[in-house]
Amino acid sequence: MKPEKLTPKSKNISRWYLDLMELADLADYSYAKGTIIFKPYAYAIWEQIQKILDNWFKQDGVENAYFPLFIPYSLLEKEKTHVKGFSPELAIVTIGGGEKLTEPLVVRPTSETIMYATFSKWLKSYQDLPLKINQWCNVVRWEKRTYPFLRTSEFLWQEGHTAHISNEAAEKMVLKALNWYYKLYTDYLAIDPFIGQKSTAEKFAGADKTFAIETPVENGKSIQSATSHNLGQNFSKAFKIQVLNKDNKLVYVWQTSWGLSTRTLGALFLSHGDDRGLVLPPKIAPYQIVILPLSKSQKIKTKTKQLEKKLAENFRVKTDNNLKKSLGWRLTNWELKGIPVIIEVGEKEVENQELTIKLRTRQDKIKIKQNNYEKEIGQLLDTMQNDLLKQFRNKKNKILQTVNNKDEFIKAINNKKFVKTFWCESEECEAKIKDETKAVSRVVELENLNQNQNKKCFYCGKPAKREWIIARSY
Amino acid sequence: MKPEKLTPKSKNISRWYLDLMELADLADYSYAKGTIIFKPYAYAIWEQIQKILDNWFKQDGVENAYFPLFIPYSLLEKEKTHVKGFSPELAIVTIGGGEKLTEPLVVRPTSETIMYATFSKWLKSYQDLPLKINQWCNVVRWEKRTYPFLRTSEFLWQEGHTAHISNEAAEKMVLKALNWYYKLYTDYLAIDPFIGQKSTAEKFAGADKTFAIETPVENGKSIQSATSHNLGQNFSKAFKIQVLNKDNKLVYVWQTSWGLSTRTLGALFLSHGDDRGLVLPPKIAPYQIVILPLSKSQKIKTKTKQLEKKLAENFRVKTDNNLKKSLGWRLTNWELKGIPVIIEVGEKEVENQELTIKLRTRQDKIKIKQNNYEKEIGQLLDTMQNDLLKQFRNKKNKILQTVNNKDEFIKAINNKKFVKTFWCESEECEAKIKDETKAVSRVVELENLNQNQNKKCFYCGKPAKREWIIARSY
Repeated sequence: MKPEKLTPKSKNISRWYLDLMELADLADYSYAKGTIIFKPYAYAIWEQIQKILDNWFKQDGVENAYFPLFIPYSLLEKEKTHVKGFSPELAIVTIGGGEKLTEPLVVRPTSETIMYATFSKWLKSYQDLPLKINQWCNVVRWEKRTYPFLRTSEFLWQEGHTAHISNEAAEKMVLKALNWYYKLYTDYLAIDPFIGQKSTAEKFAGADKTFAIETPVENGKSIQSATSHNLGQNFSKAFKIQVLNKDNKLVYVWQTSWGLSTRTLGALFLSHGDDRGLVLPPKIAPYQIVILPLSKSQKIKTKTKQLEKKLAENFRVKTDNNLKKSLGWRLTNWELKGIPVIIEVGEKEVENQELTIKLRTRQDKIKIKQNNYEKEIGQLLDTMQNDLLKQFRNKKNKILQTVNNKDEFIKAINNKKFVKTFWCESEECEAKIKDETKAVSRVVELENLNQNQNKKCFYCGKPAKREWIIARSY
Repeated sequence: MKPEKLTPKSKNISRWYLDLMELADLADYSYAKGTIIFKPYAYAIWEQIQKILDNWFKQDGVENAYFPLFIPYSLLEKEKTHVKGFSPELAIVTIGGGEKLTEPLVVRPTSETIMYATFSKWLKSYQDLPLKINQWCNVVRWEKRTYPFLRTSEFLWQEGHTAHISNEAAEKMVLKALNWYYKLYTDYLAIDPFIGQKSTAEKFAGADKTFAIETPVENGKSIQSATSHNLGQNFSKAFKIQVLNKDNKLVYVWQTSWGLSTRTLGALFLSHGDDRGLVLPPKIAPYQIVILPLSKSQKIKTKTKQLEKKLAENFRVKTDNNLKKSLGWRLTNWELKGIPVIIEVGEKEVENQELTIKLRTRQDKIKIKQNNYEKEIGQLLDTMQNDLLKQFRNKKNKILQTVNNKDEFIKAINNKKFVKTFWCESEECEAKIKDETKAVSRVVELENLNQNQNKKCFYCGKPAKREWIIARSY
């Protein structure tokens, strides 16, 4: 059932988020465990994200393709670390066309194995490299507890998969993809995530190195927001992906994979909302402007149409003509949905040649003159976009705390902080920290990758060279 | 293994098609039964189709969403005809997250049931209607024999699902969707399919009426190329989808669903190819123009860049700089892939200020002057687009034969013809025809929907009112 009223974000962010799913028409639960429906309003944001990333991929020569949903179990097993990492999360088809299958089929949790078995047939020579393939698709990883967009058994994503002649070329690709994700987050979603490399325990099953961006949420939890893996030659050896190099010798290729999923929507919703609902950065909002005519009078109708037509040349605009609902109801509704700019058009506005504007990030209404209003609205949207990023960075600064020892660490984590500290990076130590505090290493930031200091681990006291970001996870 | 040479289409169209899958980089077989890989070149055509349709859908107020892949078996069972129609083709998940599931999950063969169970929660009042939802996704229908794009266990499609207050409104939507598909085929794919209504035996499981477009192939087989269903109240009664009407009475909604899949790619490839490979209509080709520089000289490089830049303003252009391959090899390769216009740039072309052009639909090369060449190329592409449609219509006219009795019918079907004839429309008669000749009713064409003549069935002699198109099917 729809909640009557939105729980304030300041009071209970988790409840607020779930309320919003319904009130802002973002998602509905569905019938199979852990699955949700991506409602049109949320899906429209995903389409925006697709358009932005897909354009960057294509400019770089990445080609879209589509590989099958079903992976024979024996293929998945070929890379040992990989199958071990994924086996607890698999959905498995055992019946097809009315018959029991001789070999069960895994519903793809990710496509390394099904793709690379074929890459080995496609690639012959170093001249075929780099191979850069991407696909937009659904994947399934079984979940016990559902949390819309952030934890669901099925989600949507893109997965890029490339093969290169050298480790250097692969590493370059890994960082290029990571930077696309970072740019999407900062420039469009107004989110400045932590960006860096994962620990050994937290890296992708089958990768040499995993890089990630991590979105800090004000409740002290981190959302893994996109990952980019240097797979080294782990898969190329398992799948015999070899090419003749310039010296006519057979060599294994170096591979990468990188993905961004509909979790991004969860990160977006949590990052900018307030007690009145969603706040969508103008560059990603399905509609940047909603026009509300205040009556059905001819004058107002004409004005509304004229405005919509003019604004549609440069902005994504919608007119809400539903006069059966009060102005108040309509304002509240579009504010809930996070529309950046709402324009009211009434008799007064037509007479005075002005527009009454409600910005999502302000409580009061402002008036602007009707000459040159497109330019003015454009500036308001730009300012809002920049302000949201600034605001995010302020929150990020506040939530991040540097600590030097275990006591400070525990206090900070319990205080819903993200922690920056020198850590020994051992898998054993990571497991203990997780056990005791539920906190997990997020990343060593890119700027600290080459740190080589003579410090002690905040937790176990052993030598520690680099500072890490540590927090609880979503 | 790649075939050495393309089997001529005129000799064996089926072999030609399979050769092309490899030689033109369209598809590869994958590891689970009946699955294929959509290679980048074929997927790029699918992306074009998506863009065209998606734009029309959105202009009409259809909203994209995403519903789960998994359907609990009990949901699928709710509409009895529906489950009966689909149950032989299902892939079923019985294990999730390492445990046997208490209820098996069906991998969606189509989404009526999973969507409509939710529509019943979304819809309250006639004011919520029409509801128009579309999704782009993968679906699974188990196949014993694979034929790339035309018969595969998994395929990609869009499925539109709408709900309306009246049967009239639903019927209007059904025909609107059907006409979008027809327009895509004629205006973009240069294919003029048969368009009409399906027989009782051939309609969608759960529909009152099914409309379809059917592409005739020169081997006498028909490709069901898109369908649009009037579901009546069959599903709304099964799923209790009711709204309050204007008189405040609870009424069941009227529904439609309509889909177009990656089968369209198969229809496209089969329709226009020739003994030298694919022929792609300019409006749908991933690249309309490929530029082939003949050497690495600076003059040629400069000219090529200049050409590409200029042409890219209005066309989809690619430059093939792979000078390790001979001109002949490159020409053959791009002809195989059906590129409408290939431009050669050599010393002579630079000197004489002209372009040497190879059109896919002509054997010889032509020269055009370099002033005003964009306009001239634009005209060549337009002409090619129109000519391909004309050519298709000629083939369609030749393949269609009017018959009056069973003997003529059998002779025509064995002669790889499509047949137009008066038929009684009974399910019993249809089954007998299929048994004896493998031919199946395709459609009664829209223009003949209201025929009411006093004729006899060509097969069983019973009264027949309307003329039908009958042929074997792909």
